[in-house]
Amino acid sequence: MENHEELIKKLLDCALACEHCATMCLQEEDVKMMAGCISLDRDCADICFQATRLLKRDSTLGLQYLLICEEACRLCAEECSKHKHEHCQACAAACIACAEACHLYHKPIRQE
Amino acid sequence: MENHEELIKKLLDCALACEHCATMCLQEEDVKMMAGCISLDRDCADICFQATRLLKRDSTLGLQYLLICEEACRLCAEECSKHKHEHCQACAAACIACAEACHLYHKPIRQE
Amino acid sequence: MENHEELIKKLLDCALACEHCATMCLQEEDVKMMAGCISLDRDCADICFQATRLLKRDSTLGLQYLLICEEACRLCAEECSKHKHEHCQACAAACIACAEACHLYHKPIRQE
Amino acid sequence: MENHEELIKKLLDCALACEHCATMCLQEEDVKMMAGCISLDRDCADICFQATRLLKRDSTLGLQYLLICEEACRLCAEECSKHKHEHCQACAAACIACAEACHLYHKPIRQE
Repeated sequence: MENHEELIKKLLDCALACEHCATMCLQEEDVKMMAGCISLDRDCADICFQATRLLKRDSTLGLQYLLICEEACRLCAEECSKHKHEHCQACAAACIACAEACHLYHKPIRQE
Repeated sequence: MENHEELIKKLLDCALACEHCATMCLQEEDVKMMAGCISLDRDCADICFQATRLLKRDSTLGLQYLLICEEACRLCAEECSKHKHEHCQACAAACIACAEACHLYHKPIRQE
Repeated sequence: MENHEELIKKLLDCALACEHCATMCLQEEDVKMMAGCISLDRDCADICFQATRLLKRDSTLGLQYLLICEEACRLCAEECSKHKHEHCQACAAACIACAEACHLYHKPIRQE
Repeated sequence: MENHEELIKKLLDCALACEHCATMCLQEEDVKMMAGCISLDRDCADICFQATRLLKRDSTLGLQYLLICEEACRLCAEECSKHKHEHCQACAAACIACAEACHLYHKPIRQE
């Protein structure tokens, strides 16, 4: 059984930051400007939680899953970093840290 | 925005313990005896992760959700505590701690 | 193995309607007005998908889970029905149908 | 808004077949032989439900997600097709149909 403690910590930090960011974005004055952020927060939270679960259960698919997880984190970081709100900045940082961790550990998927 | 840090910590500990326990049960000699444990681990992991997410996003449904979450943890703890495997004992302990935390914070659901 | 085909159909219809409604709400002119709807769509989709899975896997917790599921559907229907957008009206209808089905089949949870 | 009705139907069929297969495998006489099947059923169900949700919410990540989804379906089909149980055969068929649909629609992920 592999132990991915550091990686799982970053995945959970990121997932929780995304949940929080989505909720805070919905309460901002300029919700319309935050629509892209809210969408990506949601996808990224879903995908980071799923990655956590696959790794923790030592799934054959765990390391391959990190590829789409890295992509989700990168897209979410890009969008969040455009906004000055504290929750967006914190979320962008968590996403970048997570993307880097995913990048270190991921295994390729057969793409034909 | 409410901050349920302690509760969320227990929910995540429990969810991760359940994922691990399910995988380890599937590798035991006596898998057949572990079938109930594997089923409840899965349900309990799903429900604890969902509770975490509702709380973190400050959902109106968060505290009511703890009712079914407590029930899932109690059932899973009951089953896991029957087995001597280290992962079952650890999972039972995490489930009990989580059930108690859920019990403290939950709000009733209208049941007619 | 119990067969909850009708119920599962309504749960999935509702979950999919909620996913669609959340995305459409984020594209409306008046996003700010839709914030409550977006939040509840998300929670309700999560909970209806989870209910589907518990029922399909014949979980001991399946019928008790319908209690929180009914509550999620009722809250989401209430909010969606306030808005004239076609996706909100369709979502409200799917939520009401699902809440009614949950109400028929749910089992009580011990609440002390 | 893209409409992926056929694809979503196959994803849901596959996800539900996996949930059912996992539960039935846990009730077989030869549970030990079914351990691989139970694990992959779980991962594949999780991933197919997640793919459904991303597509239904018209996520930027939806079509890229199909890559890991196809891989999950292929692995699960391979394992299930080794067993003669009716639920395994049905699950393998649903997984193959889903993998083929994913293959048609998926978009590449940047892999460096």
